[in-house]
Amino acid sequence: MAKILILGGGGMIGQKLISKLLNEGLAPYRELDIVAFDLGFAPDALAGVQNIRGSLTDEAALRQLCAQRPDVVFHLASIVSGEAEENFDKGWDINMFPTWTLLQALRAEHLASKGVYVPRVIFTSSIAVFGGPFEGEISDNFLSAPQTSYGSQKAICELMLSDFSRKGFVDGLSLRLPTICVRPGKPNLAASSFFSGIIREPINGETAYLPVDDQVQHWFASPKAAAAFLTHAATLESAALMGRRALNLPGVSCTVAEQIESLRRVVGQKAVDLIISRPDPLVERIVSGWPRAFDPKRAIALGFCADVDFDAIIQTYLDEDFRP
Amino acid sequence: MAKILILGGGGMIGQKLISKLLNEGLAPYRELDIVAFDLGFAPDALAGVQNIRGSLTDEAALRQLCAQRPDVVFHLASIVSGEAEENFDKGWDINMFPTWTLLQALRAEHLASKGVYVPRVIFTSSIAVFGGPFEGEISDNFLSAPQTSYGSQKAICELMLSDFSRKGFVDGLSLRLPTICVRPGKPNLAASSFFSGIIREPINGETAYLPVDDQVQHWFASPKAAAAFLTHAATLESAALMGRRALNLPGVSCTVAEQIESLRRVVGQKAVDLIISRPDPLVERIVSGWPRAFDPKRAIALGFCADVDFDAIIQTYLDEDFRP
Repeated sequence: MAKILILGGGGMIGQKLISKLLNEGLAPYRELDIVAFDLGFAPDALAGVQNIRGSLTDEAALRQLCAQRPDVVFHLASIVSGEAEENFDKGWDINMFPTWTLLQALRAEHLASKGVYVPRVIFTSSIAVFGGPFEGEISDNFLSAPQTSYGSQKAICELMLSDFSRKGFVDGLSLRLPTICVRPGKPNLAASSFFSGIIREPINGETAYLPVDDQVQHWFASPKAAAAFLTHAATLESAALMGRRALNLPGVSCTVAEQIESLRRVVGQKAVDLIISRPDPLVERIVSGWPRAFDPKRAIALGFCADVDFDAIIQTYLDEDFRP
Repeated sequence: MAKILILGGGGMIGQKLISKLLNEGLAPYRELDIVAFDLGFAPDALAGVQNIRGSLTDEAALRQLCAQRPDVVFHLASIVSGEAEENFDKGWDINMFPTWTLLQALRAEHLASKGVYVPRVIFTSSIAVFGGPFEGEISDNFLSAPQTSYGSQKAICELMLSDFSRKGFVDGLSLRLPTICVRPGKPNLAASSFFSGIIREPINGETAYLPVDDQVQHWFASPKAAAAFLTHAATLESAALMGRRALNLPGVSCTVAEQIESLRRVVGQKAVDLIISRPDPLVERIVSGWPRAFDPKRAIALGFCADVDFDAIIQTYLDEDFRP
């Protein structure tokens, strides 16, 4: 029986991950005991797991979760980029300090076990750890120079996790997720929200507004690919990481125009006609500083798999999330 | 009257910096009011500045220092690499958390001033933010993948300082100092101590032990160059940094064999004869993961100047620190 702890388990990616774990298990573990921790859970949150409500900033709660000595900890919880930018203190209080508390709590269990307990910790970082100027595809050796508080907080958590891992207290891995697309549900306040919106809204028969030029290029993974990244990372042989525990992941690089061509191919012209250009200089400025494409050699060699192309990303939305 | 605060002002680099400030001033400032803060000060510490004893971990003391609204803050204080590796908690408690406290205290002054007060903050980072494998000279775009807790703590402080600067609370700059050589005084427990020892001890007529192969290559700056980096950074036009506020600095790359040849040229064969090879596998292993050479284009373009060569580094020791 393997114990799995998912911080942020109530969120979209958390639920995708839980669904995958419930359906497919997590070889080589035989049975899974899954605890999901989040501020709240939707009424239709997946059953078959223990849902615990609480805040990441509650240090006692975090220590109690760690005292169960989970074999694998998925740390997915954070506030989004826009909110961290808006509310500086909240960003650091949610996106950085709890990671420190978590790592110290796991280290305390490690020490109490006389070194026997060494949990695998998977931290969802982001391509927001990068900031321009970029020279073509971003290599695995490219510097992290974030241009948002969110990206800075993610980069700092990566460094903490790497050092706790190097010392042998935990066995950690940071996954720099591409922008997740197509996100199901409603638009959110993230500047990246439109990348999903211009696909999702037209599929749902609604108008979508495009705030940027259609030559804007970006880096994508489906929610399904993200869940697969997480489970792959959970049982990866970490010696292969050679001490570099933050990974750029494979994804699909395409322009907005290419996204729209995919929508035309997979769904039809009627959907495309629902996209209306409405330039937003603020969004254009933010997005212009974002990564466009990667050359993630290491992650590919380690067996991480991206979506095939953007058509496949749209098809995944239709298969998994679209409710006609 | 410009107020200068130097955290770690009692240390070797702190005293070199103070000496330079007292002798040369800091254009365009006309007069300087210098406060040095450290755990302690040697009896021969420089006069003409206000020396305040205290610990970086004393948050109230840090806030009080910041309440004076220094125009320039030099943050040089940390425990060394070896100690941070030995004592994990102490490393983070001294090398990371006080930087957060400092930045929040300066931000509080910024906010209280309604945005008028934006101090220049110079943080001494280190080439320890880098970890191998390296491909030739390290470029300005190379990733930070530290292999020590010390390096991780420095990299994290860089990220914090960059984000507080991006938000306009402070105007910061992190200087990734080369290994300082020739350090005056006694050997210390740092694995890098021998790089100075094999020059300093023979000059002082004492035996020096060389723990590594003489083909080991490393990256050096004299204490004089380090002080000049700091004063240059204090008044640099920060818009030129283009949002990337951690700088690889110029230095002298040479092998141990080249260091020894310099010693022969500058001091003589008698000094070289005092160097005795005594391999230490632990030191060899640690040093093998260290950077060997950089291509610090940005810092050079910004006007930072390295020592001319290793002969000049030895001459600086003879001129400034050697007491026959």
